[in-house]
Amino acid sequence: MGQFRYAERTECMESSILREILKVTAQPGMISLAGGLPSPDAFPVELVKELCDKALTTWKDSILQYGTSEGFAPLLEALSDYLKNDRHIKSAETDRILVTNGSQQILDVVAKLFIMPGDKIAVESPTYLGALQAFNPYQPVYVDIATDEEGVIPESLEEVAVKEKPKFFYLVPTFQNPTGKSIGLERRKAIADIAIKHNLLIVEDDPYGAIRYRGEPLPPIASLASDNILYSGTFSKTFAPGLRLGFVTAPKDLISWMVKAKQSIDLHTSTFVQALAALYLGEGHMKRQIPKICELYRPKQEAMLVALKKHFPSSFFFTEPEGGMFVWAEGPEGFDSLAVYEKAIERKVAYVPGRFFYTRKEDGAGTMRLNFTNSTVEQINSAIATLGELFAEHL
Amino acid sequence: MGQFRYAERTECMESSILREILKVTAQPGMISLAGGLPSPDAFPVELVKELCDKALTTWKDSILQYGTSEGFAPLLEALSDYLKNDRHIKSAETDRILVTNGSQQILDVVAKLFIMPGDKIAVESPTYLGALQAFNPYQPVYVDIATDEEGVIPESLEEVAVKEKPKFFYLVPTFQNPTGKSIGLERRKAIADIAIKHNLLIVEDDPYGAIRYRGEPLPPIASLASDNILYSGTFSKTFAPGLRLGFVTAPKDLISWMVKAKQSIDLHTSTFVQALAALYLGEGHMKRQIPKICELYRPKQEAMLVALKKHFPSSFFFTEPEGGMFVWAEGPEGFDSLAVYEKAIERKVAYVPGRFFYTRKEDGAGTMRLNFTNSTVEQINSAIATLGELFAEHL
Repeated sequence: MGQFRYAERTECMESSILREILKVTAQPGMISLAGGLPSPDAFPVELVKELCDKALTTWKDSILQYGTSEGFAPLLEALSDYLKNDRHIKSAETDRILVTNGSQQILDVVAKLFIMPGDKIAVESPTYLGALQAFNPYQPVYVDIATDEEGVIPESLEEVAVKEKPKFFYLVPTFQNPTGKSIGLERRKAIADIAIKHNLLIVEDDPYGAIRYRGEPLPPIASLASDNILYSGTFSKTFAPGLRLGFVTAPKDLISWMVKAKQSIDLHTSTFVQALAALYLGEGHMKRQIPKICELYRPKQEAMLVALKKHFPSSFFFTEPEGGMFVWAEGPEGFDSLAVYEKAIERKVAYVPGRFFYTRKEDGAGTMRLNFTNSTVEQINSAIATLGELFAEHL
Repeated sequence: MGQFRYAERTECMESSILREILKVTAQPGMISLAGGLPSPDAFPVELVKELCDKALTTWKDSILQYGTSEGFAPLLEALSDYLKNDRHIKSAETDRILVTNGSQQILDVVAKLFIMPGDKIAVESPTYLGALQAFNPYQPVYVDIATDEEGVIPESLEEVAVKEKPKFFYLVPTFQNPTGKSIGLERRKAIADIAIKHNLLIVEDDPYGAIRYRGEPLPPIASLASDNILYSGTFSKTFAPGLRLGFVTAPKDLISWMVKAKQSIDLHTSTFVQALAALYLGEGHMKRQIPKICELYRPKQEAMLVALKKHFPSSFFFTEPEGGMFVWAEGPEGFDSLAVYEKAIERKVAYVPGRFFYTRKEDGAGTMRLNFTNSTVEQINSAIATLGELFAEHL
């Protein structure tokens, strides 16, 4: 461990193989379907200039001063309106909202408030890797909730809620990272009922819900059981991730603990950045921008789905999400997406081998996550054709 | 504890009496010497407008995209130059620097990397309250280092280093919060030697070093023993706290652990805000702004020192710092600054009773912290006269 006497928890923070694997995506000529970046074409650069000017003219030095840990009041008000009216979370009063540095910080704060070493946490299988990275330093024991083509299976959740009594259940119910799957309305109701019946805290992470290309919107689970659910949102996919701005609504007691934790972690989120978001959301810019973002991504996603059907061996399964940023593919029994990864890199295509999204090492060998938002249609066609050819050679 | 099963560490995160005490500072007509806010007059609002425009014109969408956990490359380069040339930390190459959400986040990250429940941490007595709040959730045992009028006593540090083997020693050597004291050059050398001799990690927090009204600059301890010292800086006092921007330079191995921790906590600090700071620091704005900030604060501080001499009972001691944001006062044996606090509030003056800066409940009853940066000279004169009269009545 070197010169200093680090805490034991650092053993749970080792750099993953994944980081090494993803380094190659920066090589020249590489088409990367590996990352999870929005397209820079989705960022309203000129609008941000205008918002900076307006924010500083409106609020002057006050947005350069220290602020409250809860968040900048005009943003809290805009978020409350948004969460109540657009997300149907009627309980989202301003005193049930906290602004954070992206939604990643919400995961760290939740972990800090709930996880002592050995505590049980329930997660989808597979689940969002960034959540595992946020939780790992607090040394939880993971309990997997079984999923099928519609995502989380409520019966599995109820069994775990009763038998294992996890501190909380973390899930991404809409356009999940990594699978793109969405949980339907009936299952959402069942999950909400389980949360209420067993007084289970659910951490509902919803970064992609607004990025929908087809089909009918689904209500957040938080709109069905708001006293048991922490709902986590972000401006990363609807405004710009480089601003680092997330928000959470949760029961009042939990928000007040999160505020205390936030204060000790970094006092508060950038007042200046919050002011930009207050204008972006409060003055209707977001409502106008989201359809533009969807128009930008829809043809990319359609191109990927068409190319997958055309080029991937017929023994491969893949998801067909109605929104979000990812498609999930799985090869037949015996196929190993990590074993063939080096050959894909040689042919200048990168993806994420799916095993990294599972808590158990033996799971997910045949799976992979494919991102379409940050490549052109031509790159997507070419990359999927290359992968299809390569995979066919390795069956 | 309410509905949810919070982790045991939340018991160390209870809202302090201090928070309640400071609530009254918002009452109308109150002169607050309690906070630690820079003056809003010190914030270059028009310059920030220009920097926003220039940053977006120069770097376009790239400063709205996800970035690396280490920090925005142009800011890392500007910080490396600054730390090497202005702060004399010759080892501060870009790969030994991490950008954070204010320096508060540095304290959280250090605590996360080093403190397991029961681990010993050495701190000055008194010390910065925000550091205790960052460390407390990780459940350390504090070991006090004795101080006198020149701050930390090196012999006390060496004794603790040998006997207690603390994970690290946290201090604010220049214009300390809360006392305003600065450690002289000879003691800095002695502390650096102790760090090297006993392989002790020192966390040197330097938010105020550049805010000097009189006297000769002192080198950071990190410039004397950079392989054993984590040096923490911030833009909060030299640019604007509402941006939430801090930076740290430390040995490479430690920085790489901090980067891993930062990634799991919030991925990275706002790229956009980092771009503003890259221009502010890199294009010489900070060098021009700091003298203006000092010119703004110097008369306030001089007024406070003159008023203290004139109005406080002669049995009171107070520090006369050459810079920073605070003066520290201590009454004679038997005086209790908390007991008289309510009467001060009735007379519309607030300060921070000093006991909150000590790790042991029995210490510091007679002390108080007085801030001068966020009041006018007239307010300071009036407030100190009021306190002097009140304290004289309670001796």
